[in-house]
Amino acid sequence: MDSTGEMIFTGDELLRGDAVNTNQSYLGQRLLDLGIFATHALCVADDREAIVTAIRDSLARRPQVLVLSGGLGPTEDDLTREAVAEALDRPLVHHEDLLELIRDRFALLGVPMGDCNRKQASVPRGASPIPISGTAPGFTVLHADTLVVALPGVPWELKEMWEGTVEPLLRRQSGSKGGHAVRRIRTFGIGESTVAEMLSGFQWRGSEVEIGTRASLEDLTIILRGTASPAGAERLDATQACICSLLGDRVLGVESGSLSEVVGELLRRTGTTVAVAESCTGGLLGKRLTDVPGSSDYFLGGVTAYSNQVKTEVLGVPTPLLAEHGAVSGEVAAAMAEGVRRLLGTHCALSTTGVAGPDGGSEQKPVGLVFIASVLGDVTQVKRLQLFGRREQIRERAALAALDLLRLRLLREKTAQ
Amino acid sequence: MDSTGEMIFTGDELLRGDAVNTNQSYLGQRLLDLGIFATHALCVADDREAIVTAIRDSLARRPQVLVLSGGLGPTEDDLTREAVAEALDRPLVHHEDLLELIRDRFALLGVPMGDCNRKQASVPRGASPIPISGTAPGFTVLHADTLVVALPGVPWELKEMWEGTVEPLLRRQSGSKGGHAVRRIRTFGIGESTVAEMLSGFQWRGSEVEIGTRASLEDLTIILRGTASPAGAERLDATQACICSLLGDRVLGVESGSLSEVVGELLRRTGTTVAVAESCTGGLLGKRLTDVPGSSDYFLGGVTAYSNQVKTEVLGVPTPLLAEHGAVSGEVAAAMAEGVRRLLGTHCALSTTGVAGPDGGSEQKPVGLVFIASVLGDVTQVKRLQLFGRREQIRERAALAALDLLRLRLLREKTAQ
Repeated sequence: MDSTGEMIFTGDELLRGDAVNTNQSYLGQRLLDLGIFATHALCVADDREAIVTAIRDSLARRPQVLVLSGGLGPTEDDLTREAVAEALDRPLVHHEDLLELIRDRFALLGVPMGDCNRKQASVPRGASPIPISGTAPGFTVLHADTLVVALPGVPWELKEMWEGTVEPLLRRQSGSKGGHAVRRIRTFGIGESTVAEMLSGFQWRGSEVEIGTRASLEDLTIILRGTASPAGAERLDATQACICSLLGDRVLGVESGSLSEVVGELLRRTGTTVAVAESCTGGLLGKRLTDVPGSSDYFLGGVTAYSNQVKTEVLGVPTPLLAEHGAVSGEVAAAMAEGVRRLLGTHCALSTTGVAGPDGGSEQKPVGLVFIASVLGDVTQVKRLQLFGRREQIRERAALAALDLLRLRLLREKTAQ
Repeated sequence: MDSTGEMIFTGDELLRGDAVNTNQSYLGQRLLDLGIFATHALCVADDREAIVTAIRDSLARRPQVLVLSGGLGPTEDDLTREAVAEALDRPLVHHEDLLELIRDRFALLGVPMGDCNRKQASVPRGASPIPISGTAPGFTVLHADTLVVALPGVPWELKEMWEGTVEPLLRRQSGSKGGHAVRRIRTFGIGESTVAEMLSGFQWRGSEVEIGTRASLEDLTIILRGTASPAGAERLDATQACICSLLGDRVLGVESGSLSEVVGELLRRTGTTVAVAESCTGGLLGKRLTDVPGSSDYFLGGVTAYSNQVKTEVLGVPTPLLAEHGAVSGEVAAAMAEGVRRLLGTHCALSTTGVAGPDGGSEQKPVGLVFIASVLGDVTQVKRLQLFGRREQIRERAALAALDLLRLRLLREKTAQ
């Protein structure tokens, strides 16, 4: 991993904290996938001198790529074109064909183009304009060994230009040096340290496959990086197969979708319909399932039973059961799942009931205690969880754990067939 | 606004894109609330030389504050202490009392303290350690005119130290210069440009109150900044009163909570219980309402009726109504809200039905068409929305619009009484 990259973001909104800089994490990941490690990422105010200094400082470190984002609009605060021209000591050159493109864009949007947009048709001498998706053209220009890339700050425009133009360009450049290949193994239900321990053996085999992990609330992704050659692909295949067999059903898939998507795909493939009965998650489990386009093929609906009255009257949870075990219990979770399956007439159902906090906990039933249940065929399965974190995290983790409970059951059904 | 601040974040995870830098937007906002405008925010790799250079470059620009975040842990990658000492040309000094504090922390967590934690008890000569919340002590040190602040990268630890120690320190410093006061007016249902137009008059009165806006999917906050003097407070009061009267019921509140919290407070105060019937939002509306701790006082539950069968069989939407108008219609939205209120026996109810996309749209019922309904007392109110964006945004906007529909009705009820 010897290539380095840098990023410079302009825009007072990033420094005032009015926006979170998601472009940085996006670009950091994409660069790394190309084998380029970002060493500096700077947000700088809309001040021409400060931007010029930042560009010069970066170029002095001779990165392979310097990505600038933002400041390509038509207003006086948009200074990136001028700053790059000054830092690279090249004049700005007007491109009439670029102006035509911008004019066409405006015509398409049914908006007249303003005079101020004229300056957007200029790029530093020797720079190549990037085909535009929005109305702010980007450009690339090679300066010494550094590819300087200027992109808009609007995330979707930045992504389109990056994936459509810049990434292919960088791939071609590094093609001569071999190039990099990446595999992502998505897992659920294991921690980063457990994975590190399980995989520690791999690090010693000198396999030229680099193994990294990326953890989020939703899942843990194991990232394998190797060379793009046929021999490299073979090594990646072998490593991937080995890791997948070690982790077994903890693996959601290679280059797979989210847990909701994986569960949805299993439901769709097996022709299984599902319903949910939620207490502590308050609708979040249904929301997760329906995040997936086309989920109406298998998700029929659900009942959020926040009060005990809804649990008994709508879901048919027996009142004595509630009185004996309390709403937060495995017995009630099971009765909720069975009740909603009966009510909605689905093949299977999931339920959640727990103490999301911050209040409402007791010694026997502390904040974070959650019961989830799944019912499929004749079998109801209940799981007790002790979750940590704030209310929001406890609710998210409970919903994800319920989805995973269903995933594992559907997987076993499939294997048993 | 003459004071400036800078931020330096260390941590390869930020540069690899494994984490989004939420500390930056947090610190940017907090600095601005103190009247300090951030001019540079840099993420730099875990490399001692690079960190030292970054600190020196920043100090050369003489900001009032330089905040460093991350790199205070016990590992070899944690280089902030050493880098600050080198950049400021001061030796590291061991503090035995700090080591005691760290040892106590570990004892409290029931974990033995490692040898490597010893180095966390050192700070540059002349620096003041910050009382610790986690196990990584921070510190502040005044260098020339710049207050250098080193904080952990863990967001909650950073926030605790910032609000508990650094902010009071900066407030005392700026107290002599007058200090700043901030008011936040939270609004829903108006765009940034509309607000800008409505408020354009204010800019001309030379009122010494600076007006800014901060927009998110959830709401639009109008931020007033002035001086903390009694005369300044009077000016802020006058401006705030004027804006609130201009915007009327678009105002959620001054320094208020989220839309869900405001609706929850209205429900609680009026002793009103609520239920939800959701189609396109799939549980999200219930999730939003139950994001608020204590929401079980007024939220009894809901039915997610993703399939038409659930709409008719559970919610009692008449089959002919569905056949005549289709599931995505004002008529069905109204019947859903009325149905769930009847089923759960609440005072009021909300419903959503629409085309969230990306598929399922038609010429008559395009993606983004959503009907929401509220029922309260004898009156059912229906609203037709044409929303834009991706599936996720359409669903979020539909849920928020439904909450706002209820807010306005509850407000009018209150006024009518």
